[in-house]
Amino acid sequence: MSTIDRTPAHATNGNGKPYKVIGTRPIRHDGVDKVTGRAKYGADIHLSGLIYGVVLRSPHAHAKIRSIDVSQALALPGVRAVVTHKDLREPGDRIVELGEGAVNLRHLSNNILAADKVLYKGHAVAAVAADSVHIAEQAAGLIKVDYETLPAVIDVEAAMKPSAPLLHADLFTDELGQKAKAPSNVAKHFRFEKGDIAKGFAQAKVVIEREFRTATVHQGYIEPHNATAMWNADGYITVWTSTQGSFTVRQQVAELVNAPISHVKVIPMEIGGGFGGKIRVYLEPVAAILSKRTGKPVKVLMSRADVFEGTGPTPASYIRVKLGVGSDGKITAAETYMAYEAGAYPGSPIGAGAMCIFACYDIPNGRIDGYDVVVNKPQTSAYRAPGATNAAFALETVVDEACEQLKIDPLEFRLKNGVKEGSRRVDGPVFPRIGMMETVEAVKKSEHWNTPLTGKHRGRGVASGFWFNCGLKSSASATVNPDGTVALVEGSTDIGGSRTGIAMQLAETLGIAATDVVPTVGDTDSVGYTDVTGGSRVTFATGYAAYEAARDIQRQMVERAARIWEVDAAKVSYENGGVTGPDGKRFSFKELAEQINKTGEPIVGRGTVDPEGCGGAFATHVVDVEVDPETGKVDIIRYTAAQDVGTAIHPSYVEGQIQGGTVQGIGWGLNEEYFYDAAGTMRNSTFLDYRIPTCYDLPMIDTLVVEVPNPGHPYGVRGVGEVPIVPPPAALANAIYRAVGVRMKQLPMSPPNVLKEILRKGASK
Amino acid sequence: MSTIDRTPAHATNGNGKPYKVIGTRPIRHDGVDKVTGRAKYGADIHLSGLIYGVVLRSPHAHAKIRSIDVSQALALPGVRAVVTHKDLREPGDRIVELGEGAVNLRHLSNNILAADKVLYKGHAVAAVAADSVHIAEQAAGLIKVDYETLPAVIDVEAAMKPSAPLLHADLFTDELGQKAKAPSNVAKHFRFEKGDIAKGFAQAKVVIEREFRTATVHQGYIEPHNATAMWNADGYITVWTSTQGSFTVRQQVAELVNAPISHVKVIPMEIGGGFGGKIRVYLEPVAAILSKRTGKPVKVLMSRADVFEGTGPTPASYIRVKLGVGSDGKITAAETYMAYEAGAYPGSPIGAGAMCIFACYDIPNGRIDGYDVVVNKPQTSAYRAPGATNAAFALETVVDEACEQLKIDPLEFRLKNGVKEGSRRVDGPVFPRIGMMETVEAVKKSEHWNTPLTGKHRGRGVASGFWFNCGLKSSASATVNPDGTVALVEGSTDIGGSRTGIAMQLAETLGIAATDVVPTVGDTDSVGYTDVTGGSRVTFATGYAAYEAARDIQRQMVERAARIWEVDAAKVSYENGGVTGPDGKRFSFKELAEQINKTGEPIVGRGTVDPEGCGGAFATHVVDVEVDPETGKVDIIRYTAAQDVGTAIHPSYVEGQIQGGTVQGIGWGLNEEYFYDAAGTMRNSTFLDYRIPTCYDLPMIDTLVVEVPNPGHPYGVRGVGEVPIVPPPAALANAIYRAVGVRMKQLPMSPPNVLKEILRKGASK
Repeated sequence: MSTIDRTPAHATNGNGKPYKVIGTRPIRHDGVDKVTGRAKYGADIHLSGLIYGVVLRSPHAHAKIRSIDVSQALALPGVRAVVTHKDLREPGDRIVELGEGAVNLRHLSNNILAADKVLYKGHAVAAVAADSVHIAEQAAGLIKVDYETLPAVIDVEAAMKPSAPLLHADLFTDELGQKAKAPSNVAKHFRFEKGDIAKGFAQAKVVIEREFRTATVHQGYIEPHNATAMWNADGYITVWTSTQGSFTVRQQVAELVNAPISHVKVIPMEIGGGFGGKIRVYLEPVAAILSKRTGKPVKVLMSRADVFEGTGPTPASYIRVKLGVGSDGKITAAETYMAYEAGAYPGSPIGAGAMCIFACYDIPNGRIDGYDVVVNKPQTSAYRAPGATNAAFALETVVDEACEQLKIDPLEFRLKNGVKEGSRRVDGPVFPRIGMMETVEAVKKSEHWNTPLTGKHRGRGVASGFWFNCGLKSSASATVNPDGTVALVEGSTDIGGSRTGIAMQLAETLGIAATDVVPTVGDTDSVGYTDVTGGSRVTFATGYAAYEAARDIQRQMVERAARIWEVDAAKVSYENGGVTGPDGKRFSFKELAEQINKTGEPIVGRGTVDPEGCGGAFATHVVDVEVDPETGKVDIIRYTAAQDVGTAIHPSYVEGQIQGGTVQGIGWGLNEEYFYDAAGTMRNSTFLDYRIPTCYDLPMIDTLVVEVPNPGHPYGVRGVGEVPIVPPPAALANAIYRAVGVRMKQLPMSPPNVLKEILRKGASK
Repeated sequence: MSTIDRTPAHATNGNGKPYKVIGTRPIRHDGVDKVTGRAKYGADIHLSGLIYGVVLRSPHAHAKIRSIDVSQALALPGVRAVVTHKDLREPGDRIVELGEGAVNLRHLSNNILAADKVLYKGHAVAAVAADSVHIAEQAAGLIKVDYETLPAVIDVEAAMKPSAPLLHADLFTDELGQKAKAPSNVAKHFRFEKGDIAKGFAQAKVVIEREFRTATVHQGYIEPHNATAMWNADGYITVWTSTQGSFTVRQQVAELVNAPISHVKVIPMEIGGGFGGKIRVYLEPVAAILSKRTGKPVKVLMSRADVFEGTGPTPASYIRVKLGVGSDGKITAAETYMAYEAGAYPGSPIGAGAMCIFACYDIPNGRIDGYDVVVNKPQTSAYRAPGATNAAFALETVVDEACEQLKIDPLEFRLKNGVKEGSRRVDGPVFPRIGMMETVEAVKKSEHWNTPLTGKHRGRGVASGFWFNCGLKSSASATVNPDGTVALVEGSTDIGGSRTGIAMQLAETLGIAATDVVPTVGDTDSVGYTDVTGGSRVTFATGYAAYEAARDIQRQMVERAARIWEVDAAKVSYENGGVTGPDGKRFSFKELAEQINKTGEPIVGRGTVDPEGCGGAFATHVVDVEVDPETGKVDIIRYTAAQDVGTAIHPSYVEGQIQGGTVQGIGWGLNEEYFYDAAGTMRNSTFLDYRIPTCYDLPMIDTLVVEVPNPGHPYGVRGVGEVPIVPPPAALANAIYRAVGVRMKQLPMSPPNVLKEILRKGASK
């Protein structure tokens, strides 16, 4: 079930007239290709003379590399090249913005092919290119790496201890970011403060302080990473890859292989999921240097184990939260200590997690301490609202406990404490018009909330979540065809149907049908700079660029009509899907389009944006569970997700994003985890053993689409893709508590972990 | 040897400063791909599940199709579909502009797959798609076509006789385009007149009237036609083809397969020559309907014989010229009767030929009668300056005879009679600033002209030629990269290095290096509408679009710099490859480019043009030959081609165009012809028997590049590709006359034809 709460005042095109395209559900432009198998993903690329690359990975979680002997591998017939770290450029400690996060190029380079040390099991050490993938695999097995193994640390709390094995000799972060005397595994420490927490806690009637631990989980995209590269004799490099951002791949490859960015052309293939994990590069520079060495196009694919062990999951974390609430139910103070695992190199999403943890509530006095900590695991990457899910699990569980102690309904608590326009976050920013309260109201009046939950071992939980969303840069260009259609080129990789959502904004602006727009995702040589598909930014920002391109077309069509009519262009205007002039003169878009090539130059519109005001996203979820007290297994009976989406351009995709994000949050909450043995080896690096939810595990996820238009976008769009993953673990924890009386403080809330708490509670009775 | 006659006043960037990029010779952007074999031509396309199409062609020059039985072909294992004319849409008698010429859609449809009649040997009748090309060929042999053969006519003079076999029942053209009482093979007749020719001829001291005949010749591009099409389940069609114009292929395919143009995406592959012959479609609609019928991508390739017999050569012609010259050496009158073979369907370049024939001279009294005549040969197509070479052969030979009779030096005759700014053509238009006289002056002062020719059976000939050039529509867009390079997308298929010539105009405008532009030829969904690569228009018009895109970038860079400097944009200007502001503020292009993504939206420039004032092109050629009086073989000893190119953007390409066009004109003049037997079958449809010149037949073609800037273009560009083919046959004929005393009035001037004239002259002594 999906409900859209659309206020009549909103659903207009800015002239007070109703939208014609926005809010409808046209069939996606890429739909047939996707369902018939014709869509081309990275692995589908075939080129004349293609050879295959295989990456050799470390069997150790932590070791020095004494030497690498590639002679036997090179001697194998059919082997064309073997490369190691020294074949990459050493780019130094420069930072490259990835759009969602940033990366230190030296670390990136070392992560792609290890230099002097391997820092996790699965760390890439060398790569072979050969005439077949089988020869390449055999050759990889012939590379002799002489390792000196070192003790590993794979847990954030252990890694922070002074006695912990050190990953890097050059991390000297002391308390609050001062340079320490000795190196440690803490890469960063920062603090946000607001008000006076001592005073705040003193005012509280209830103060609750709890510790939480969450496991490493993976985005679980279905399509493994892939890259095919051709390094041409003229020094120009073409890369075909499934990525969230062709321009960031271009930049990373250029930096790591030492080529000018204009010599790197990235052709984004269709992508089978990314969720933040396909922004940083892994294989692309390796394919490129193998191609340079061999003069042939080289394709490199990951196995599922490579994906789990060699790409960036989201961090495990340790979070301590202390919350003070007054007798009036108003929060008086909040404090948190958050330590996130960065993996092998610095860069966990601790910053975002810290800025999100308290963001749903108006907190007068707060303090946030954040720690970024390296451990012997793969370097973490973005994953849907990076860092916010861990944070919400902790905070929202404590909120629920406070509600329980103060006997306040959890929705009333949120209505009393929730943020609205003008509220200031603990980390500083003041909110513009947002929809936190509206999501709570939507749940409050929902059929789900108003239907009592009955039955044994059943419970209902509520949780809210916040994500910033991003703006960033986008480009689009659009050409008017003589048949009244428009060819649109935009730069955002389409993961969730975004090309249609972007095309719809162009269509709305021009007053034509969405099906009369033919959208294409351009390569890096064919479209203006466009940041990654991430940060819930694409429908917002690239849609905005399409709107600007349409406005550019409008202006030219007005001029053209004035030229045809021989009237002053100032007397001509674009309205209602066409051009209107003096004395009732009128061309529909299609009529004027037919005239363009007969009356002058072609009409091409361009739009480039870097918009502020992306508008934050809020979600409030309610879930009913039934827990089997004998096994600890949690079954979800009903789930409803309310979310402020600004304006739902294509409601089906909005619902799909909410449902998909929620399901990933459920998987994270109930089952998913990297399971390590003592040696630091992941023991469940297959989809058989790493348990993501399937449709057999889930009811339909009902959505409550709340539309509080974003004033920062011409059609009120807010990003929708990320925030739905934030509330689920917390909502589930709160529901489990109501069902069986145990407060889960560890993710995943898998049967053994839940059962342990049930047994502990039984024992303590 | 190449000489560029560049006046210092011209070689500037409009601010009086010298050009920095224009006039230099950077390595072409596609050079390495072309020489290493990596460039992808149409035949290089491979797609998953690809099947192969073969076209069955008529063995008869003229026949009714009584019936077609495809049952045996369809029964062959591996055959997927057989299509005939009825599978194409019958689009009616609408005309589609092809950019260089136009086509009647009904004729186009009937030419692609014959309806009720075949009109030439090689006319396509049916097509088979099968799992392999061998099965398809076998199946084509199993198609039973029941023909009723008809008498054929393959000669324009014969075809105009009332007794001639009729190709079409619906051609009723009488004298001067009036509707005739009975059908004929004359598709069109028109007349241009200026002054009073009776009076003009009465004033003449010398009146010469001669008849000329030219053979059918082919463009002789090395790459045969090809098309691969995928008709997707959603109704969208992708076509990969080597073509001179992706947008015209899109339109023709859409019309013939009955799809909206926005459902057809044409991806232009690299092209191995076109010269006018790869504008009209042959295989593309066939591949598309075979794909529709089979659900698979289908590739169809032509053999060399298919190319000769089934595509559009340039017409054979009959031309009568009468020229009157006064005792002062000034032309008093000129009259011509020109009949061009259209091939099987109307549409020879008679119109262009008629407008060119007298265009080099200021003729006070003139009359031109033009006839377009159908014959049982392939429908003719454009070929470099379509129709002008036949015309120049006739007129320039008569001019030479007049010079001889009046004892006037042929260059002096041209200086006396040649056209200049303000001269009015017989067909009406008045010339703007042109360079006819400058080409004559360039020859006059050339080392070649001033070196006496000695030796037996040697002679020197001179001839001039004219071609209009075209403007038409072009689009370009360009994106500024953060490293100070620019990605350029333009819509013109690159045949002669045009992407570099276009990139250089963008580079000149922005003040950056040509190598800092990365040009891409876009497909029909990725770039604004762009007319065909033809009419010598690309460097002129698409270069103009690139200039406009650069100007658009300039404007945005000025705004950005003003934003960064916090000054009024009116105080900032773009100059000398960068932006200058008040108080000595300055960003080079590269410096500002680095700032773009840090300070706001990306910068994308767009340019769309439909320019007037393409500026006509003139050439004057001089050739020295030696004729073997015993065999009639003509050897070229020395050749110099002077041409007004406006501005030579990339002199190497300009020289290459002049040399290539000249060589094709030499082949046309000396050797090339469709050799038909009595049944209308071409007997020399291989490159072994159809004799195009090779480097063994030719000396270096020296060029004199004359630059008379075209006022209709920001950098003074004129088209250069076509006019060099115009003078060679006439220049050769005039040289042969000086060598052995025979006036050749028939092309080719092949050994047997020259020997026949030598023997006739000997017999008449």
